[in-house]
Amino acid sequence: MSATGTADASAVGGFSGDNGAVHVIQGGADMDEQTAGGSEVAADAEGIDGFSEARRGFLKGALTVGGMAASWSAAGLSSVSNAHAQPTIVPGTKNHYYLPATDKTVHWGYFSKLLKPLVEVNSGDFVTIEVLTHHANDDASRMVTGDRGAESVFFWDKQRKGVDRRGAGPMTPTLFGRGAGEGLGVHICTGPVAVRGAMPGDILEVRIIDVTPRPCSNPAYKGKSFGSNAAAWWGFHYKDLLTEPKPREVITIYEVDPAGEKNWAQAVYSFRWTPQTDPFGVVHKIIDYPGVPVDHSTVQEKAGVLKNLRIPIRPHFGVLGLAPAEADIVDSIPPNYVGGNIDDWRIGKGATMYYPVAVPGALLSAGDSHASQGDSELCGTAIECSLTGTFQLILHKKDALAGTALAQLNYPLLATQDEWVVHGFSYPNYLQELGADAQSKIYEKSSVDLAMRDAFRKMRHFLMNTQGLSEDEAISLMSVAVDFGVTQVVDGNWGVHAVIKKSIFAGT
Amino acid sequence: MSATGTADASAVGGFSGDNGAVHVIQGGADMDEQTAGGSEVAADAEGIDGFSEARRGFLKGALTVGGMAASWSAAGLSSVSNAHAQPTIVPGTKNHYYLPATDKTVHWGYFSKLLKPLVEVNSGDFVTIEVLTHHANDDASRMVTGDRGAESVFFWDKQRKGVDRRGAGPMTPTLFGRGAGEGLGVHICTGPVAVRGAMPGDILEVRIIDVTPRPCSNPAYKGKSFGSNAAAWWGFHYKDLLTEPKPREVITIYEVDPAGEKNWAQAVYSFRWTPQTDPFGVVHKIIDYPGVPVDHSTVQEKAGVLKNLRIPIRPHFGVLGLAPAEADIVDSIPPNYVGGNIDDWRIGKGATMYYPVAVPGALLSAGDSHASQGDSELCGTAIECSLTGTFQLILHKKDALAGTALAQLNYPLLATQDEWVVHGFSYPNYLQELGADAQSKIYEKSSVDLAMRDAFRKMRHFLMNTQGLSEDEAISLMSVAVDFGVTQVVDGNWGVHAVIKKSIFAGT
Repeated sequence: MSATGTADASAVGGFSGDNGAVHVIQGGADMDEQTAGGSEVAADAEGIDGFSEARRGFLKGALTVGGMAASWSAAGLSSVSNAHAQPTIVPGTKNHYYLPATDKTVHWGYFSKLLKPLVEVNSGDFVTIEVLTHHANDDASRMVTGDRGAESVFFWDKQRKGVDRRGAGPMTPTLFGRGAGEGLGVHICTGPVAVRGAMPGDILEVRIIDVTPRPCSNPAYKGKSFGSNAAAWWGFHYKDLLTEPKPREVITIYEVDPAGEKNWAQAVYSFRWTPQTDPFGVVHKIIDYPGVPVDHSTVQEKAGVLKNLRIPIRPHFGVLGLAPAEADIVDSIPPNYVGGNIDDWRIGKGATMYYPVAVPGALLSAGDSHASQGDSELCGTAIECSLTGTFQLILHKKDALAGTALAQLNYPLLATQDEWVVHGFSYPNYLQELGADAQSKIYEKSSVDLAMRDAFRKMRHFLMNTQGLSEDEAISLMSVAVDFGVTQVVDGNWGVHAVIKKSIFAGT
Repeated sequence: MSATGTADASAVGGFSGDNGAVHVIQGGADMDEQTAGGSEVAADAEGIDGFSEARRGFLKGALTVGGMAASWSAAGLSSVSNAHAQPTIVPGTKNHYYLPATDKTVHWGYFSKLLKPLVEVNSGDFVTIEVLTHHANDDASRMVTGDRGAESVFFWDKQRKGVDRRGAGPMTPTLFGRGAGEGLGVHICTGPVAVRGAMPGDILEVRIIDVTPRPCSNPAYKGKSFGSNAAAWWGFHYKDLLTEPKPREVITIYEVDPAGEKNWAQAVYSFRWTPQTDPFGVVHKIIDYPGVPVDHSTVQEKAGVLKNLRIPIRPHFGVLGLAPAEADIVDSIPPNYVGGNIDDWRIGKGATMYYPVAVPGALLSAGDSHASQGDSELCGTAIECSLTGTFQLILHKKDALAGTALAQLNYPLLATQDEWVVHGFSYPNYLQELGADAQSKIYEKSSVDLAMRDAFRKMRHFLMNTQGLSEDEAISLMSVAVDFGVTQVVDGNWGVHAVIKKSIFAGT
């Protein structure tokens, strides 16, 4: 959230809520103090515990004092009758919550069922979530400077980091020496949001109502938005380069139109990664820890790259999903059965995701926002660009699923306006399948072949379960009308998606 | 070609040639008798040799006597000023040839550089090619009966087959006992067409001008077209079935609108494959040899399958490509660097393919026509449906390639109206890479992972070579704007395609 609120104003522009029943929370007065807790995890090696008072302070402070209210007011949302008034939660109507991205509202590089929710919402409620790209410090002047939310998250001096834990690794970086959390997980996730009454076995429907780029808050780049693409060591290309020097990591900065008038992005410049010394004195020879500030005096900016090329934008959330049940703290990189880092560009405005709930409250978080990505995310990242999304959350209770299309759904399902999409992974539930060391083993077992197998099984299940087809009908239909694509080959648990057009069933 | 010519009439409808310069060959008078030879290969174990007099007989006979001329006349092509007149080849103008599919014009289940061409054309000429699906005998009453061309190809009694060799295996079926050629290769290919002056190192551009379904010639199904989908033992699903009996092969017959008014196909019925005894007495417990007539008294037809579902049609040629140089006779199933069985549904009307020429004359053939297919062709086949295509062939000589987008092109490249598509395979040139036993080994080495690797390398090559990008630019662009999809997982040499939008480069 920016200091002035203007950034957020345009970020939420275009969404006008739910028939006038939208209400802005003013500081957590409607929050259940028993469940709303701090997102800051303790800086110890044991992982998640010791939720601090900071969170409650945040909810009572930042949102009320010029944060939330200012933002909504500036957005000029006519449906918010009096954004500065005390919140009025009308029973039976839908509420609308706004989660800025700050050092107090994000968890960086992991999912955890132990995180206490920022807010608990009712089924049907709306929530607007700011998401910061973890690559903002590739060019801080374009993606951090002047942006109070980003500045609080990326803050890092000799004494302190705004968000210390980055990844699911140990807080004392004895493993690789990279930093707290060891960068075993990289995405800045805003959340989690709890849904009242959600329990394992339920299905959470997440409707993506709106997605907008986060405008740059640096006056030098007024009216623009930016993103970063890192061709990094975990990319599919890295050990297969043609030209010298080999290997190398290259960052390309892209410009995106925050006004939404241009539906394309354009490259601004690129630079080769050089060893970067973080404020704690650790040298990062490669991109091995998220949020390391790049000292641009050490790199050579190359202008005129991809000159005049227009990249079609596909704003979406690379990470959107629920806390898994299998482990206390889970690396944000490999996607799994409750979603997470699926990295499908179709998870954008107008799309609806369905997730199986694994833990009480469901615990939804959003991260890894992308301005655009191709199927495969080949070089390791997309156009990593801060975005703000507005979501409606609808809970489907387990008992009411029988006979519906959501019965037996044990994987993340996507519905776009025209298509249904299932997401296959090398291991559909790697946390369960690969045993105690699952979170490291998954990186040794990446395979498109396995993900293709899983996507086949899931699409068969979808067609048999939701469309009432026999297995033979489903298999024939898959061969003649379902398109299988490579979602990503860079997230440890590689992905293949299967897409079927809804119009096929229009006559049934 | 049908007895009456009416089938062909609508098949070529919609294409009116090249500014009145279209000419119909009347019997090979313009053929070079030195190069135009028989397509029938000798029924011996040595493979391809002994080109017969039958071909020349065909060219002088079938086309002239009521074949070609009747067809074109019935098509009402105004540009054909006098289809019954003697052919007039005007130097400097483009000619148009028509290749019906008959027992004399097809090679079944293989490519071969030793096949003498049906016709030799000039660069710029048009050729209309009838293609028969090799699955027509799954329901002969709907896809063979009354269709003189199909009847000649599928003819099989106790003494003789219309086309004996089916596949690249030995003519005496000592390997598996399936039949001549052993079914090591299955597609009925019409051709080859030679391009005058084409030599290894050149590029052949094949523009797909029109594609139309072949109407059923059985009066009982007047005004309809049909296709067959076989969920077969080579399908991705076969060893991974949920329901009994396991394993099983299932044929689904689809109906397609030959008039082109309906842009969807619908299932008619399905049946489970039962052991079929061919006219030579060989029992085919599974679908192990192409063109085995199915005795419908032995199967149980199940109506009402995929009821009311509309399958979007995507008429295209699963097989389109040139003769490779590496072997004398090559199984038609695995795709390779000169194309062949790529099985990409984008290779349809309006698309242009570019192939590296491997042998003198290029030797283009078309086969495996599909009414529709999904990316992956999961169960082993598409909607296998006879189609007629009209192509324009343009030769790009090696010496003139330097500095053009086609320089160094050593893989099949597709341009659609809006996209460029490269095709990666598990092994880009398996015939060369896998040694003497390449044609059997390739089936043991199928891998989507390897095909993804190849697709990445080819798209990088395309972007660097034709768009002038640096390697870093190409890699970033691939990650943010190129979609990788699973072309097929059923053709031995599995495929991944990479798609990039042309509009990205509109401003360059």
